[in-house]
Amino acid sequence: MMNREDHLRRADWSAEQVELPPHALRWLRSETGLNDVHTPTRQVTASVSELPEKARDVLADIVGSANVLTADGDRLGRAGGLSYLDLLAHKGSGAVAAPDAVVLPADPDEVTAVLAACAEWGIGVVPFGGGTSVVGGVAALRGDKQAVIALDLVRLDQLVSVDRVSRLAVLQAGVRAPAAEQLLAAHGFTLGHMPQSFERATIGGFAATRSAGQASSGYGRFEDMVEAVRVATPRGEWRLGVAPASAAGPDLRQLVVGSEGTLGVITEVTVRIRPLPTVRRYEGFVLDGWERGVEAVRELAQHRVLADVTRLSDMDETTVGLALTGGWKVKALRAYLKARGVSEPCLLILGWESDVQRRRAATLNTLRGAVRVGRPLGEAWRHGRFAGPRQRDALMNIGVCVETLETATHWSKLGLLRSAVRAALTGALSAPGRKPVVMCHISHSYETGASLYFTVMVPRDERDPVGQWKRAKQAACEAIEKLGTITHHHAVGVDHSPYLATEIGELGVEVLAAVKQVLDPTGVLNPGKLTPR
Amino acid sequence: MMNREDHLRRADWSAEQVELPPHALRWLRSETGLNDVHTPTRQVTASVSELPEKARDVLADIVGSANVLTADGDRLGRAGGLSYLDLLAHKGSGAVAAPDAVVLPADPDEVTAVLAACAEWGIGVVPFGGGTSVVGGVAALRGDKQAVIALDLVRLDQLVSVDRVSRLAVLQAGVRAPAAEQLLAAHGFTLGHMPQSFERATIGGFAATRSAGQASSGYGRFEDMVEAVRVATPRGEWRLGVAPASAAGPDLRQLVVGSEGTLGVITEVTVRIRPLPTVRRYEGFVLDGWERGVEAVRELAQHRVLADVTRLSDMDETTVGLALTGGWKVKALRAYLKARGVSEPCLLILGWESDVQRRRAATLNTLRGAVRVGRPLGEAWRHGRFAGPRQRDALMNIGVCVETLETATHWSKLGLLRSAVRAALTGALSAPGRKPVVMCHISHSYETGASLYFTVMVPRDERDPVGQWKRAKQAACEAIEKLGTITHHHAVGVDHSPYLATEIGELGVEVLAAVKQVLDPTGVLNPGKLTPR
Repeated sequence: MMNREDHLRRADWSAEQVELPPHALRWLRSETGLNDVHTPTRQVTASVSELPEKARDVLADIVGSANVLTADGDRLGRAGGLSYLDLLAHKGSGAVAAPDAVVLPADPDEVTAVLAACAEWGIGVVPFGGGTSVVGGVAALRGDKQAVIALDLVRLDQLVSVDRVSRLAVLQAGVRAPAAEQLLAAHGFTLGHMPQSFERATIGGFAATRSAGQASSGYGRFEDMVEAVRVATPRGEWRLGVAPASAAGPDLRQLVVGSEGTLGVITEVTVRIRPLPTVRRYEGFVLDGWERGVEAVRELAQHRVLADVTRLSDMDETTVGLALTGGWKVKALRAYLKARGVSEPCLLILGWESDVQRRRAATLNTLRGAVRVGRPLGEAWRHGRFAGPRQRDALMNIGVCVETLETATHWSKLGLLRSAVRAALTGALSAPGRKPVVMCHISHSYETGASLYFTVMVPRDERDPVGQWKRAKQAACEAIEKLGTITHHHAVGVDHSPYLATEIGELGVEVLAAVKQVLDPTGVLNPGKLTPR
Repeated sequence: MMNREDHLRRADWSAEQVELPPHALRWLRSETGLNDVHTPTRQVTASVSELPEKARDVLADIVGSANVLTADGDRLGRAGGLSYLDLLAHKGSGAVAAPDAVVLPADPDEVTAVLAACAEWGIGVVPFGGGTSVVGGVAALRGDKQAVIALDLVRLDQLVSVDRVSRLAVLQAGVRAPAAEQLLAAHGFTLGHMPQSFERATIGGFAATRSAGQASSGYGRFEDMVEAVRVATPRGEWRLGVAPASAAGPDLRQLVVGSEGTLGVITEVTVRIRPLPTVRRYEGFVLDGWERGVEAVRELAQHRVLADVTRLSDMDETTVGLALTGGWKVKALRAYLKARGVSEPCLLILGWESDVQRRRAATLNTLRGAVRVGRPLGEAWRHGRFAGPRQRDALMNIGVCVETLETATHWSKLGLLRSAVRAALTGALSAPGRKPVVMCHISHSYETGASLYFTVMVPRDERDPVGQWKRAKQAACEAIEKLGTITHHHAVGVDHSPYLATEIGELGVEVLAAVKQVLDPTGVLNPGKLTPR
């Protein structure tokens, strides 16, 4: 479990540093043109705090003066999220835009009181959970306010109640995913929500951003698990959700879920829970070619026999994964696949966590044209499932521009969308001496379509590292907005905000603004996020 | 399929009249005190049309003058829905509140044009599909407008497109459920949405009211099937939904779904479709006692092995069902159950419509303590599944006050909620010489809870038939709002509107009003529905 001080080290994913093995470095050099091993220096400072002293006193009256932090280290620890550009900023030099103070409320009532005070004093509020946003969702923007605070929910860390019969648990918003699992496990339950941000992200953050975990095929997206929410707003508390389903008008929970802190601060979430798995089984399979792989996953989804984790990598991701792993086992695997006539290997990871025997049989009964490559590959994926962010730190440290982005669309447009995004990224990032590697996988499948998750690596352009990525991201987004959703599970934040109107219409943007006007009339909540300015 | 003229006969469910068998009459007399066989007369007239002539001309310019109807018969055919109180009004005498005109647009663009004209002329618009609302959802209320039209979507009857790969179909809003099934069956697909209103209700109505079909355990609620919507508003057209799932902010589709015509008129719905079942299997089981039955259904839901149709009747409903059926087979069944020691028989209907063998095995493997009573009972239920409304007509014709209401809650509160509603209804309807029969079933189950559906029969109080039911409904709603949702699938309309604020909070009501202000600034859309006045 993380403690509060850990925020200070958040520019690196964790204390546990990862070193890239020599063969991986060799591969990167030959494949991408990487040549300059770069050691970062960190000399950033926090922007000067501009919180008026009187406002600080008011906040201290609510949460106690020990829970209003203004030291540079505390503020830097909540200065933005974990996107590539965020990490660049924290690894660079100069002043980072930091919140003017960090406020640590103890409970939902204190959150409501803080919001009322901030509305009165005209102070922006960035709700802060794990700080794992990769879209600028927790950037310390002031908007038109004189100051902005990070409202860190770390003290809202309680499992409030468990209803064993209804399989419901009430968790406070600041509970991190590992803590939630630990608290629920004591009662024999699990949430089963395992996004790559698992180690740090919080229950409130999951709900605020429509998070989807790696086992979403089995456990559902986070919004599917949300039975009720308790929300603090500058107008007071708002509670929603009294039954598993309802026809009592529009489902307003779905307005709160995904509101990214702009409509209120989620303080408690009632979540659906399931019995802790007693048996887990993860296996690797290989399909020959992307189209065949997609076809196989689509059939599993449409027959409704998806494994809890169903994850198909394209050939590039499969090849890179094997290249970065290396060793004799990989050589043996390549030979094994070659002997089976597989020329374009696409790795499919399937993992079952409940009713394993029966459900695995149903999945495999439908799965066609797949070569089994065994449990060790499945287990290896499972054990490394949260390693991505650490690997990214290691890659950044040797001069690699590395980032991910994602989308989703219907099955009939999936091939087109993948090609368009690959072309956009490759085109924008190719330069003399720099060759991008673009990988893709499906990690979330539905009867009608699936997500696409892209990972990009290219030698960093040290003269303009920010511009290098911004241009690539823009090209990708412009390809995506024509064929799919601008984000399947990373949320909108600042980065996707320019594309929201295309997706929900100008009327949709107006609707969100009108809802905000009701709940946050003075506009203190998470300035500059979600809706286009 | 229905034709337009059929609306004229809508006060009766269909031309096919049902007669109650003599043993059913005997049972009703002895059980409830019914003694006065009453033959209704119908002499209703429509309220006078107050549509200004100029407005009529403007509307005729848009849809053609043949598609603006003002004759009494046409207007009476769209005067309200099919609740017990609606039917009472239509079976009584005097003037019924009818729309001032019926307008029949041909396509989504005409709908948008009609709304713009109505906004300009200050004319209320009641979107009208199958007219099957049982909560006053299509009542011809004028609000503060000078006139109100029924916007009958019957001409929007096209299957626009089918995406076989993604299993999606675009259906226009006016397509009735049987027509939708026929259109989709030609492509080998089904929607699988089978509410009791199936014979008349429309795609647009399903979406506007968060409908749930009898096979919701298998096919999902209607909102689960909605991938995208096309909505006409007085501000122009609004389209939502580009992917199977998204994190692009709040899910605004869930604002439109359930908006009951107050935020816009749904003109097209993109729905998830499934292959037409080749094999169906329906079976009857009996559990001994309500608690054991609930326990069994809960286990099926929480093991995620529910049959597509899973429907548990309490002992009263089971007993009444058998009594109204009668005959030697029922006697034999009673003897069979007695021999097995069943003292409080609760009928459980299970029906599978896909992957029948495998899924049936999974269901039965989890089902405990149930006595099999065979396929004929299951099939009998399936064949009679849409008969309810016709039976109600027959009962009303002999002087019975007969109505249904429903709710949902978490498993841990289900027993309490059922008892509270039963007590409320029984208390309110008991009178010297009149003994109510209150029956209940679960027809929609979830991991965290289930719906409760109540059917009430009592001899009609001919001196105050409206007051008799209104008092009972109010008592039931007051019990429901403490423990569950005010409506699981009947929607809000006029009848549940006073209880909405309890469920979604005053802030929720304000949010809905603010959204309406954006989309329908002059307030012409379905006046007096959904939000409390």
